[in-house]
Amino acid sequence: MEPAAIERLSFAIIDAETPEPRPYTGHQWEVARRLVHTSADFELLSLLKFHPLAVDAGLDALRGGATIVTDTRMAQMGIPQRRLGALGCTCVCLMNDPAVMVAAKQQGVTRARVAVDMALESAGKGGPVIFAIGNAPTALLRLLERMDQGQPAPALIIGMPVGFVNAAESKQALMAQQRVPYVTIAGRKGGSALAAATVNALAEIVLRERAEG
Amino acid sequence: MEPAAIERLSFAIIDAETPEPRPYTGHQWEVARRLVHTSADFELLSLLKFHPLAVDAGLDALRGGATIVTDTRMAQMGIPQRRLGALGCTCVCLMNDPAVMVAAKQQGVTRARVAVDMALESAGKGGPVIFAIGNAPTALLRLLERMDQGQPAPALIIGMPVGFVNAAESKQALMAQQRVPYVTIAGRKGGSALAAATVNALAEIVLRERAEG
Repeated sequence: MEPAAIERLSFAIIDAETPEPRPYTGHQWEVARRLVHTSADFELLSLLKFHPLAVDAGLDALRGGATIVTDTRMAQMGIPQRRLGALGCTCVCLMNDPAVMVAAKQQGVTRARVAVDMALESAGKGGPVIFAIGNAPTALLRLLERMDQGQPAPALIIGMPVGFVNAAESKQALMAQQRVPYVTIAGRKGGSALAAATVNALAEIVLRERAEG
Repeated sequence: MEPAAIERLSFAIIDAETPEPRPYTGHQWEVARRLVHTSADFELLSLLKFHPLAVDAGLDALRGGATIVTDTRMAQMGIPQRRLGALGCTCVCLMNDPAVMVAAKQQGVTRARVAVDMALESAGKGGPVIFAIGNAPTALLRLLERMDQGQPAPALIIGMPVGFVNAAESKQALMAQQRVPYVTIAGRKGGSALAAATVNALAEIVLRERAEG
């Protein structure tokens, strides 16, 4: 079977196994379904939370050639360039940038935090930016802190740190604010693959729009 | 908090929340705990399956400067070079290799399948090899097929494809054979992050051994 056929069959299985009424419809369901496809974890359907403007904000950003900023190379690798390139979008991750490593050591803070600061300075000059955070609570918390300090908000935050220390709390803080649309997974679950899958689901919607003219 | 301190605290939380008697002990528990750490999914504790020789085979391979072959760039990025380099190990992924792309198109088969064939020819010449498969059932099935055809077995197969079409079946086939030690996750769950985490858990054990002299 071709990869595209396997994906269609997988989505049909997820559709069939999700009781009606489904917790999401339309584009939100397309995102939710891809997260289940990526993880085989149906529990995500009760944990996934969308700001009401999140899908529209994400689609608009991708239509406008967004820069996607990830907090791991894993998430960056999970967003195929063939999808992004076709949309005129790019994906960057500064975690292994030598300047980030030097600054983190000098400031005595995490690379994730410095990478957010540097991304805010450099990414998507003039164009829309989507942050896709699947690993580091400190990245998400730093981004929210900078917004509190007056930094213009990105178009969308995909906030999905995974783990047992500060991950749930960082996502709670994301959901508690209203300045920027978000997609998140409440609680401890999350991860780079899920953050990437959210971008991919939104990108697929835009690519389909274009194919359908 | 430092990343290392966060990790220790996370492991302590997982220890505390896993009822005694735990399903695994010793090194197997260290692997299992890291998979929970990566996913925040305690259900993995009932799905994770070790061939009885798997941990020893994996540790021996890493002590011997193994080549780790992954089926995704995501998994490759999830295995930090700082860990592997300290052990004299390397990690390769051929999925985006131009020769793999050409051959897959010519043969009309998946890149994942061709990448396994090419890895069997080129990876770890003379040294131990660990396959870490977190995405493509066709990669795992091709590896088992080649072994059936007489291909020497790798030191260890970490077989953790995720998904709804052939993932569970490919892992069933892995567990049904006895020629090669394996670590796997029964059923649909799995993924690149979990395959990478399994390598990382084993690498941490070897690094600790060395640090303790």
